[in-house]
Amino acid sequence: MTEQKRRPQLVADHEALARTFHQPENEQSRNVLTKYMEQILFGLHDFLREHVGITEEIPLKELAAQFSSSTIARTPVKRLADVIAKIIEELAPQAVNVSSPYFIGHMTSAIPFFMVHLSTIVAALNQNPVKLETSKVVSVYERQVLAKVHRLLFNLDETFYETHIQRPESTLGSFVEDGTLANLSALWVARNRLLPATSGSVGAERDGMANALHDRGLRRVTILVSQLGHYSIRKSAGVLGLGYDAVTVIPVDRANRMDLNVLQRTLEEHCRDPETAVMAVIGIAGTTETGAVDPLPAIARICREFGVHFHVDAAWGGPVLLSERYGHLLKGIELADSVTIDGHKQFYLPMSNGMVFFKDPQAMDAVAYHAAYINRPGSVDLGIRSLVGSRAATSLVLGSALDIMGADGYALLIDHGIETARAFAEEINRRSMFELITAPELNILTYRLVPDGLRESKESNETISGESRLRMLNHVNIQIQRLQREAGNSFVSRTTLRRSGQPDTVVLRVVLMNPRTTPKIFNAILDEQESIYLDSIAPSLRLKSLTP
Amino acid sequence: MTEQKRRPQLVADHEALARTFHQPENEQSRNVLTKYMEQILFGLHDFLREHVGITEEIPLKELAAQFSSSTIARTPVKRLADVIAKIIEELAPQAVNVSSPYFIGHMTSAIPFFMVHLSTIVAALNQNPVKLETSKVVSVYERQVLAKVHRLLFNLDETFYETHIQRPESTLGSFVEDGTLANLSALWVARNRLLPATSGSVGAERDGMANALHDRGLRRVTILVSQLGHYSIRKSAGVLGLGYDAVTVIPVDRANRMDLNVLQRTLEEHCRDPETAVMAVIGIAGTTETGAVDPLPAIARICREFGVHFHVDAAWGGPVLLSERYGHLLKGIELADSVTIDGHKQFYLPMSNGMVFFKDPQAMDAVAYHAAYINRPGSVDLGIRSLVGSRAATSLVLGSALDIMGADGYALLIDHGIETARAFAEEINRRSMFELITAPELNILTYRLVPDGLRESKESNETISGESRLRMLNHVNIQIQRLQREAGNSFVSRTTLRRSGQPDTVVLRVVLMNPRTTPKIFNAILDEQESIYLDSIAPSLRLKSLTP
Repeated sequence: MTEQKRRPQLVADHEALARTFHQPENEQSRNVLTKYMEQILFGLHDFLREHVGITEEIPLKELAAQFSSSTIARTPVKRLADVIAKIIEELAPQAVNVSSPYFIGHMTSAIPFFMVHLSTIVAALNQNPVKLETSKVVSVYERQVLAKVHRLLFNLDETFYETHIQRPESTLGSFVEDGTLANLSALWVARNRLLPATSGSVGAERDGMANALHDRGLRRVTILVSQLGHYSIRKSAGVLGLGYDAVTVIPVDRANRMDLNVLQRTLEEHCRDPETAVMAVIGIAGTTETGAVDPLPAIARICREFGVHFHVDAAWGGPVLLSERYGHLLKGIELADSVTIDGHKQFYLPMSNGMVFFKDPQAMDAVAYHAAYINRPGSVDLGIRSLVGSRAATSLVLGSALDIMGADGYALLIDHGIETARAFAEEINRRSMFELITAPELNILTYRLVPDGLRESKESNETISGESRLRMLNHVNIQIQRLQREAGNSFVSRTTLRRSGQPDTVVLRVVLMNPRTTPKIFNAILDEQESIYLDSIAPSLRLKSLTP
Repeated sequence: MTEQKRRPQLVADHEALARTFHQPENEQSRNVLTKYMEQILFGLHDFLREHVGITEEIPLKELAAQFSSSTIARTPVKRLADVIAKIIEELAPQAVNVSSPYFIGHMTSAIPFFMVHLSTIVAALNQNPVKLETSKVVSVYERQVLAKVHRLLFNLDETFYETHIQRPESTLGSFVEDGTLANLSALWVARNRLLPATSGSVGAERDGMANALHDRGLRRVTILVSQLGHYSIRKSAGVLGLGYDAVTVIPVDRANRMDLNVLQRTLEEHCRDPETAVMAVIGIAGTTETGAVDPLPAIARICREFGVHFHVDAAWGGPVLLSERYGHLLKGIELADSVTIDGHKQFYLPMSNGMVFFKDPQAMDAVAYHAAYINRPGSVDLGIRSLVGSRAATSLVLGSALDIMGADGYALLIDHGIETARAFAEEINRRSMFELITAPELNILTYRLVPDGLRESKESNETISGESRLRMLNHVNIQIQRLQREAGNSFVSRTTLRRSGQPDTVVLRVVLMNPRTTPKIFNAILDEQESIYLDSIAPSLRLKSLTP
């Protein structure tokens, strides 16, 4: 009631509307709008700083009950000030503090402070790079940013870039929402280049998969990727009309890299079958689950031998090329036909920023579309060769970040991540309660907690069967991850590794990309896991009854 | 040199890096960051206010030459302050002033001031709604926003929303980058529901289009849409492996609405053919080129009769439902199976914000994907049923905007657009030099300038053939649009209407969505077009030689 009196009823009228579209005319209203920005910048961050935890403990069910209104109010119910206050005070504490150095479970992490400013610029300019008429210089700028990353990947000669960087008929790459759509774009191009219009066929894009295959006497096309391939590969095959069973999974070796012998054998087998065509082989530069890098030079050589499109999913690893110390880990990426990179991962950009690149500047001609009102043939509209239409001008964020950070600035982040991961792995090896499952090649590693009674040894092997041992280990590690997440002080993720010849193994997974994550912090996280096990899991395990 | 002295060399070191990730610890650095925000908020807007023009006149070639660097510098080359200054002083003047009330050519326009703040919040929180572990409350919030728009569209009963709004197994819709991906998502679902896994078939998603069709003795599936359908429909058919020839174009009537007789006849024909299956009929609620709305209730009735998925592309028109005065123009949309809406169009959100909705909360089960490390079966992760993976939490922008504007606030914008379009059309009819080609049904209309000597009359018909008359009219209007755009004071777009039984007609196209576009402004734009014609085109036309 008091509040009702203090605040006039909100109304939607032309005067109120005009205020939201017009420039604030006086100093006072400018100050108010700046004040709001200050609250957003520091109100949210202050919260995150005080709130070292990852998230509050309110159960999801309870949270969900608070968001059960399905009607849009007719009259305004909040001012901008109310919205900001509510987000800072009520929403943010229930969001996930991805910028905490204790949040080391996913590929979402802290971003440099200035990224928020750069995102604000994108919104304030509100350009739409789908066409020149709604973006002009921003389209030109975007081409430059794409060329810079293209060069980082493929390192072609100066003449190549001079020729193609601003040539309307050339396309070095495309911004998309994320790695999923980047992979989809690359495979869309690969599909259309495998099944193009010829004298004997209208081609897949125009005539569909069924006819394009039939015209060539084919029964199926396949995509080969290691078993650690991202699920977006299967999704892309599903979307593109190949069916996700088209994805042929190649096992990995002990280092989680694609088994080249099996790759070679599978390619021979598929190519022997006159009804099968191989559409693409995908190498991974930083698998989602273990961070491993496939043997790219060898895969490239095999692809060339078989004349198959070579795509590299470097959504995670791509920016490692910026490091003089570790860039060599991605050797062979320059031999790819197409590459996926996620800007919101190791370029440390805010969500969302995906990119796909093609070595051949004409590759994306295979997916060109025109319309009568925009994207007319011969125009320089970027929307002609692109999966998506309208989109935000996120090239401004990446381009500016490259200027502000320099390759060296990014290299500091990359090097820190890789070196912290190595230190973490050493610590795992040092602690008797843990077992390292996959050593870090980049900055991701997996491990698990192995209780005393379940440690592999002559004695335990006699008393617990391998299968029940694994079942118990999986159970223990699922519990640890869940209890740690719910406690809210730190966060690691978990996944189930399915490696050929080995049973499904539940592992704890850490992604080390936050420059503020120090050995002191990861030790605290490991200590917490040990305590969780000892205090909350061990008592109910009754291992004793199993190990007499 | 002086500058070199004044400013220390930029270096990338750990200290500099720490500053970008840490909280600013003191008042002074906070003030600097706030100051930057102020510059972004008002520097860009001040530019736009002073710069009434749409864009500077620098030719594209010259602009392109300025953006031809393809190398990423090793050391930092700019501070945030430099980046902001450069964007305000050099980039923005070459961008397109889409917020000018004189920019009435595309579906990109001014946005309320507070939208920039809301976008900043999204970047600052940097949540990733692909999974609960990187978004928590934001996923729950997003479900609420989706339910609100779902209810605006389908208006199902309270019990329906109580049941599904937060039920993890239900999906009312999905945020995607734009209308293209929304249409693609809807058609992906429709494809998989037409060709599901059954006892006789593995289904399209898993087994591919070729096998799924073969299993059913089908040769093709078709999508029916009017000839004014957005080009993303053809693109979606291409991507999904149907081939873009699967899109069967239904002609429009004189009001640019789908011809129902032809629709009925085509459906009968396709259904008679045992080798053809109709996958979807698409009704358009606001065609891109003319703003026309298809007869949705009748199309819905026909779809039900034939048992075909009914998709409505309301990328443009959807938010008209918020207007009590004009919401009825979209009658029948509630009968759709799926609907596309673009938030960055008539919800006035910044780029980019697309959405797709399904009446059946289980529809998106047809496109579910899981992974071992996230999106596990049974989890509430939103990424399970979604084309895209990682993405920005744009639901925060739309949800907050609905609170701030209320339906009534949006209705003011919608009503203004429709009524301004009507006034514009009246003005066209009043001016003898113009001809209205498509009257506005919503807030889009097309027209052309018809010079004296080319006016259709008994005399002119005798002297100029219809064909050469049309060719000259097309030429004149292409010139007008180009010269007006290049002059940089105002912007209308042009398109080529291809209507059955009529020759290709070049038209000027206006989209009236900026609340600051008044009759005075559109009259000035028409005056300018007349002047451009008289001063720059007529002298070289030599119409006299054609009209003796």
